[in-house]
Amino acid sequence: MKVIYTDNNATTMVAPEVLEEMLPYFSQYYGNPSSMHSFGGSVAKKIQEARQRVADLIGASPGEIVFTSCGTESDSTAIHAAIESYPGKRHIVTSRVEHPAIKNLYETLEKRGYRVTFVPVDGQGRLDLDYLYDSLDEDTAIVSLMWANNETGVIFPIEEISRTVKESGIVFHTDAVQVAGKIPIDITHTGVDMLSLSGHKFHAPKGIGVLYIRKGTRFSPFMIGGHQEKSRRGGTENTAAIIGLGKAAQLAKEHLDEGAYERVGRLRDKLENALLKRVSHTMVNGDRQHRVSNTTSIAFEYVEGEAILLMLNEFGICASSGSACTSGSLEPSHVLRAMGVPFTAAHGSIRFSLSRYNTEDEVDFIIEKVPPVIETLREMSPFWKDAGAAARLEARV
Amino acid sequence: MKVIYTDNNATTMVAPEVLEEMLPYFSQYYGNPSSMHSFGGSVAKKIQEARQRVADLIGASPGEIVFTSCGTESDSTAIHAAIESYPGKRHIVTSRVEHPAIKNLYETLEKRGYRVTFVPVDGQGRLDLDYLYDSLDEDTAIVSLMWANNETGVIFPIEEISRTVKESGIVFHTDAVQVAGKIPIDITHTGVDMLSLSGHKFHAPKGIGVLYIRKGTRFSPFMIGGHQEKSRRGGTENTAAIIGLGKAAQLAKEHLDEGAYERVGRLRDKLENALLKRVSHTMVNGDRQHRVSNTTSIAFEYVEGEAILLMLNEFGICASSGSACTSGSLEPSHVLRAMGVPFTAAHGSIRFSLSRYNTEDEVDFIIEKVPPVIETLREMSPFWKDAGAAARLEARV
Repeated sequence: MKVIYTDNNATTMVAPEVLEEMLPYFSQYYGNPSSMHSFGGSVAKKIQEARQRVADLIGASPGEIVFTSCGTESDSTAIHAAIESYPGKRHIVTSRVEHPAIKNLYETLEKRGYRVTFVPVDGQGRLDLDYLYDSLDEDTAIVSLMWANNETGVIFPIEEISRTVKESGIVFHTDAVQVAGKIPIDITHTGVDMLSLSGHKFHAPKGIGVLYIRKGTRFSPFMIGGHQEKSRRGGTENTAAIIGLGKAAQLAKEHLDEGAYERVGRLRDKLENALLKRVSHTMVNGDRQHRVSNTTSIAFEYVEGEAILLMLNEFGICASSGSACTSGSLEPSHVLRAMGVPFTAAHGSIRFSLSRYNTEDEVDFIIEKVPPVIETLREMSPFWKDAGAAARLEARV
Repeated sequence: MKVIYTDNNATTMVAPEVLEEMLPYFSQYYGNPSSMHSFGGSVAKKIQEARQRVADLIGASPGEIVFTSCGTESDSTAIHAAIESYPGKRHIVTSRVEHPAIKNLYETLEKRGYRVTFVPVDGQGRLDLDYLYDSLDEDTAIVSLMWANNETGVIFPIEEISRTVKESGIVFHTDAVQVAGKIPIDITHTGVDMLSLSGHKFHAPKGIGVLYIRKGTRFSPFMIGGHQEKSRRGGTENTAAIIGLGKAAQLAKEHLDEGAYERVGRLRDKLENALLKRVSHTMVNGDRQHRVSNTTSIAFEYVEGEAILLMLNEFGICASSGSACTSGSLEPSHVLRAMGVPFTAAHGSIRFSLSRYNTEDEVDFIIEKVPPVIETLREMSPFWKDAGAAARLEARV
């Protein structure tokens, strides 16, 4: 069965050009880039090329790029660096809709005695900026805010926020995992001190991430070990994955420049509008004006998201009920709860996240398959039956 | 030019069978194993298979295996887990000859107020066991000792030490990065609570590691994020690398059972004995009786190790002057210093570390090339000239 993959916010296909660039570095040029011999040294040169390519994607200098093992490690490293560098400061700030990599870390730090501000969002997933700025004081070590939300795609105005926070002299970190390759980033025009990327969200392999650290930012390593990454991250360099990440960054920039994500946005809009029109009691979660173009989170009221996913899976359609990093949990998404999405809508929310590899035929296929799935499930749903005759009648118009 | 690769303690070639097993998981079966859809779920099954294979290599249960990004992360995770789990205990123990992943971490913890015991070794690199046991007290949170030394190959009697430490109720961790696939490991007959492995030291790719955590061991995650690895390590699973690691573990066990490392040992002994015989003022660093079979650290007195490596590099011979993780540093190896190796010998020490892929022809080639290199360098060496006529005469016999 053909797979219709619309779960790109969870992970993406490694681009064929990326895999091709990586392949020689497993069994052929496998030397340790920190070695004295030229067999290892030649790999070190390729790593420098990759560092430049990643820097170019976000307008940074190569020296500001540190390779990590994933977005989670980048996030942990950034928060760790700030609290280690400012040991007297015991207040840390984030939002209520962060990825588990930040959310769970902040909750752990709260248990360890840090004062934590979780800035709320409104019903559209927009950050309460007054609440954020009011929370800052001389005790604040770091503000960490995601650039775009992984579940809804909603974009926070990071350029503006980071500049304002920076004026207070507070370290600003952003988890940019969901924007890399989807919107242009020029880090120079922001107040961002540290920024996290994850390779496998933009067609590089899993197991490789980036932490951008603005020159001059106080830093303390999280992964302590060898002298790699100028002593900012110990551990033998993950050479093939780094080289692949460099290629993925180059491709991401090219596709972005060529308008690939406008095209993806048109597909997303077609999908979203068609489902809203064809299925009653359906709404989009989050601010439709300020979103990454590949993501739609659609609430199908009175049905269970998991049941929708299982039925779509039968057609080869891969989507998600939220973050893969929280799957297995029976609780509704903390993101949708923070937005005040009603229980019956949060539980029936499905995220479709597209990539430049999706086609119009695939979107048409999804548009064809989803409405009868929802109808079938609603027929079986006690919530739907309880919703009353009026709703049922409306749905059958 | 053909590469003669004898730097396998720095990193190894990815086995062709390993790469083959990994390949489908980049661009074909790239789903997130935590996803609801079967496209991701099928990858989760392969990860379970890999977990079983890694468990089999060390006699563990699959539930005791946690995948990390590298040996350094495994080490950091183990130490972090112990000190978080026993917050009242402020004493930590290790040896003076550890890899930078432990050495630099312990030095950092010392700066943060922990009392650290660095147990000394003798001239053969053997641990002072009385010193170790005398250091333990009720304040000791963890003992961490490498199983085999990366520079000399010297094996510590971890089975015995771990059982004795365990009797004191103290957590025992071992960095087993340099023994995996080289000696049989059966964790059940030890007192080891946690054990670190690094894939790229036994023909899996770089960027993947393992932390074995004995069932019942108190644990606190280092990489905080999603629920992956039963909430013991956040971050999307590095699927292709995990699957490759599983294959590499399976191969390692097979080759070990078939006597591959006895064969490697014969090659190593041939190389070592020939160089000792053909080059004067040369000695082996470390206990020759208790070593992993692939490693020899040879001190060529009165020459610079870096100069030897550069000249060997011209013949395509890849060796090392110590740990790649400390290269770039001009200081002599902390391992050889701890052993009391004289300055002129420590600076001229070269590590050859073989693998099952090395051949007798390669060893013969090295035996042919090394003696004239040393002779050339000694002719240029002021130390050698200072060493006096007697030494020179002896060398020319």
